[in-house]
Amino acid sequence: MASTDIATRELKNPMDVAEYLFRRLHEVGIRAVHGVPGDYNLSALDYLPKCGLHWVGNCNELNAGYAADGYARVKGISALITTFGVGELSAINAIAGAYSEFVPVVHIVGQPTTKSQKDGMLLHHTLGNGDFNVFTEMNSGISCYTARLNDPHDAATQIDSAIRQCWIRSRPVYVTLPTDIVVAKVDGDRLKQPIDLSLPENDPEKEDYVVDVVLKYLHAAKNPVILVDACAIRHRALEEVRDLVEASKLPTFVTPMGKGAVNETYKNFGGVYAGSGSQPGVRDAVESSDLILSIGAIKSDFNTTGFTYRIGQLNTVDFHSTYVRVRYSEYPDTNMKGVLRKVVQKLGKVNAAPAPSLTNLLPDSEKNSTSQTITHDWLWPTVGQWLKEKDIIMTETGTANFGIWDTRFPANVTAISQVLWGSIGYSLGSCQGAALAAKEQNNRRTILFIGDGSIQLTVQELSTILRNKLSPIVFVICNEGYTIERYIHGWDASYNDIQTWDFYNVPKVFGGQDGYKGYRVKTRDELNKLFADQDFCTSDKLRLVELYMPRDDAPSALKVTAEAAAKRNE
Amino acid sequence: MASTDIATRELKNPMDVAEYLFRRLHEVGIRAVHGVPGDYNLSALDYLPKCGLHWVGNCNELNAGYAADGYARVKGISALITTFGVGELSAINAIAGAYSEFVPVVHIVGQPTTKSQKDGMLLHHTLGNGDFNVFTEMNSGISCYTARLNDPHDAATQIDSAIRQCWIRSRPVYVTLPTDIVVAKVDGDRLKQPIDLSLPENDPEKEDYVVDVVLKYLHAAKNPVILVDACAIRHRALEEVRDLVEASKLPTFVTPMGKGAVNETYKNFGGVYAGSGSQPGVRDAVESSDLILSIGAIKSDFNTTGFTYRIGQLNTVDFHSTYVRVRYSEYPDTNMKGVLRKVVQKLGKVNAAPAPSLTNLLPDSEKNSTSQTITHDWLWPTVGQWLKEKDIIMTETGTANFGIWDTRFPANVTAISQVLWGSIGYSLGSCQGAALAAKEQNNRRTILFIGDGSIQLTVQELSTILRNKLSPIVFVICNEGYTIERYIHGWDASYNDIQTWDFYNVPKVFGGQDGYKGYRVKTRDELNKLFADQDFCTSDKLRLVELYMPRDDAPSALKVTAEAAAKRNE
Repeated sequence: MASTDIATRELKNPMDVAEYLFRRLHEVGIRAVHGVPGDYNLSALDYLPKCGLHWVGNCNELNAGYAADGYARVKGISALITTFGVGELSAINAIAGAYSEFVPVVHIVGQPTTKSQKDGMLLHHTLGNGDFNVFTEMNSGISCYTARLNDPHDAATQIDSAIRQCWIRSRPVYVTLPTDIVVAKVDGDRLKQPIDLSLPENDPEKEDYVVDVVLKYLHAAKNPVILVDACAIRHRALEEVRDLVEASKLPTFVTPMGKGAVNETYKNFGGVYAGSGSQPGVRDAVESSDLILSIGAIKSDFNTTGFTYRIGQLNTVDFHSTYVRVRYSEYPDTNMKGVLRKVVQKLGKVNAAPAPSLTNLLPDSEKNSTSQTITHDWLWPTVGQWLKEKDIIMTETGTANFGIWDTRFPANVTAISQVLWGSIGYSLGSCQGAALAAKEQNNRRTILFIGDGSIQLTVQELSTILRNKLSPIVFVICNEGYTIERYIHGWDASYNDIQTWDFYNVPKVFGGQDGYKGYRVKTRDELNKLFADQDFCTSDKLRLVELYMPRDDAPSALKVTAEAAAKRNE
Repeated sequence: MASTDIATRELKNPMDVAEYLFRRLHEVGIRAVHGVPGDYNLSALDYLPKCGLHWVGNCNELNAGYAADGYARVKGISALITTFGVGELSAINAIAGAYSEFVPVVHIVGQPTTKSQKDGMLLHHTLGNGDFNVFTEMNSGISCYTARLNDPHDAATQIDSAIRQCWIRSRPVYVTLPTDIVVAKVDGDRLKQPIDLSLPENDPEKEDYVVDVVLKYLHAAKNPVILVDACAIRHRALEEVRDLVEASKLPTFVTPMGKGAVNETYKNFGGVYAGSGSQPGVRDAVESSDLILSIGAIKSDFNTTGFTYRIGQLNTVDFHSTYVRVRYSEYPDTNMKGVLRKVVQKLGKVNAAPAPSLTNLLPDSEKNSTSQTITHDWLWPTVGQWLKEKDIIMTETGTANFGIWDTRFPANVTAISQVLWGSIGYSLGSCQGAALAAKEQNNRRTILFIGDGSIQLTVQELSTILRNKLSPIVFVICNEGYTIERYIHGWDASYNDIQTWDFYNVPKVFGGQDGYKGYRVKTRDELNKLFADQDFCTSDKLRLVELYMPRDDAPSALKVTAEAAAKRNE
């Protein structure tokens, strides 16, 4: 390592690689790092406190990965630290989910020393075959950038590139940190120059051209509408979307994955479009439109009620992070943000029809019902009446993330669910991360709806929530198992049943004692009373609510989607 | 699919692919299948009961993978069913562990239909990029065979090959099962011909040659010894080893990963050899030997107390599943089983020195102690006095799997730990699988020692244990966190602390109520009393014991190994 020593002596402000990395994470807004300690990352963890980073200490790596995903969805970016082999592989499903859904997570993996790797030593956490690259290769398909910090000479450059790529492509990056590199020296003065997180500018002439084409069709349209989807959120185009919605007054709709992207209290907000699962009036409004400004679409099965969109490409302008498409004309290498900004500036007059009216009022079938059974038709509008501005509302894949379609949000609500990747159990891990991020943002409320089957996968993160003194409200929908699966296949099959748990007391055995409040809710009156309880609504403790609902009940959108999935599986 | 239909009509005994697959699993001894339901595997699960297979229904896929590993270590082979993307990736760390440690697990992944894959549909559980191969590729590095069941014409052949490879190479195989292939037809009459699970025969002339060379050195040796390691177990050479140990009367030692490979009640059993972590007298006996018959060695760091073996290659004969090496002469493509069998047959006279005497008596330091503190020096010999024949003893990576070196087993004990892969939390999942296998084997006892940190990773499998009415004895070593890590780095670092749980009551909230018994043990007298309690020893219920031990205590072998690991990480 003689050359390194010389290089170190030449550095004006020598800084350990781990410190450099963590200061960069802090610079981009990260204040807490998720993960599990392991012997190949322990010495790196020592650097966290002095870099202003809180170590969360999750119960396992998959949950830590989910939590990092949730934290990033609230804060913009996050970091996860695992250990070589065992740790990183446990987290890989969470990272794949973040890749699938465009969530920027910096995944740092503590590795054996570069020498041990070079020598192919038979170390624990290896496959015993001397191959130290196999896990990096496994991660390459689900990371948008890989930084192998094997050499102090390019470590700082690699770190900066990784964080930049993570941010601008809004996807996970994979960073290897061998234990000897933790203490290797890089130039600390590089920190004076912040990482460039700006998007590459669109070619101005091309951008103007695209804007003109868009406006030509927009001005000619008789009843144009705006349809906002996931990538508008994930690629940070929400300001541009807001300005467009406000300036144009066009009827505006969101997809399931686009929930939370626009202010749903606006008069021109019309509800959720998802093909045959759309809210009343919405399907007509969108499908009869002669120009749909489709922003950040991900037309996946669960986001379109089983591919039931009926929108012609001749009536569509697609805005994406890497291209814009007007009817069939494609404009590659064009980011929607610049285009949307200019469309707003040059907007002029557009034909804004009235949007369907959407409220959180109960549907007719429930309005005059004397039933005390908590059904999905009743629950979700009722939740909508209870939500507050700036709440973070999380829904697990299953009845909850279909039910939330029927909830009209107050302003500035963040909605989190995993509609595309759909990994069961995700939302509880993610809730821990989101709740921590929410705490950093003036104690926003974090509210989770998860099923009694789903929560069993990741339940120990209730312990991490308690340990970090976080205060989400967790509703456990007690409906006897995997209801979404029953609708797809195996209505009464025992494989869709679960062990019955005493959820109310789970936080207690995880060291909750006085750190949480438990509730059991079986009737509408009880839930209404709970929603009116100020202590429940504003407590700074974890609240866990057992929410009893019928086994066989589901939001209608789920029923249609599940039927389509079952048919496709044949 | 016209060609398939014609083919189906031509089949004498048409059988659905799923049924064929499951009947093959049954044929090789599998009676229970681990996993988690997901919409791409549900229809396959319908076939399990009629094929005589019990569906376990784990809480999550990582735990299910660990359980399948544990089941295979007892029964010889196992099966795991997950769903595409999310499920299989959650399990991938468990599969990597099985690959690393030579455990045969048939991993079956329910996939979207072949048509959906061909069309690159934007389905849930995908990366959204139309790539349906990425997860198969990720699995290829940790599977010894991949069977992609995309075509009914070769599905049966692929299944047979996968199971054969799984068995003879003793490693995981990866089988994809698209939902449309579940019901595709194969020839059921193939089942009349059992899968060939026999190892390829050694070339007889070559085998004889190797045997002669081995015997030449063995007969010339003054104080030869036998050293048995993991691959003797994993590659099923235990009968040959037993015969060699019995016939030769040579001093016989095991490595940590070889625990349970030989009958430790034999007079010529001398204890655990692991370099500087060896038991008293053992290191001398092995390292002064002029011929070590080393059977199935895996010389990993944790199996050798940090690479502290001091055995010359000139004094060694290495027996492996794919080669034999005598001093520096290598004999590739030679399986140890055939060679060992013939060595026993032709053994003749060998010089058998007496072996060091190993007992479960307490060390001098503990013998006359009046302390009631449960220390590792006291615990492990005491456990040895309590164990019974045929027990399955499981130890988590940490203090427990180092402590067990000091326990002399009764006959026919199976020891399970994950010394090479060392994934924290493994042992509880594995315990569920082992306990189920134990139940199938005349209700053998399954006994687990796991730490209070480790169990938090996989705790929900206590629920699966209860749901399946299994009756392991689970000792939770309550010592305030990750003690093995403290010995490596961060003695008082908060990242090595954990949330304090009420373990005693955890099974209760997981639906245990009357299905388990909880205990709290803080003194030696209490543990002795518990070990003498017949109800505790023979109950058919889960027993969970909180076992309080000092935070900073560890087996001496762990201390030495951790020190070596810390040094290597510098």
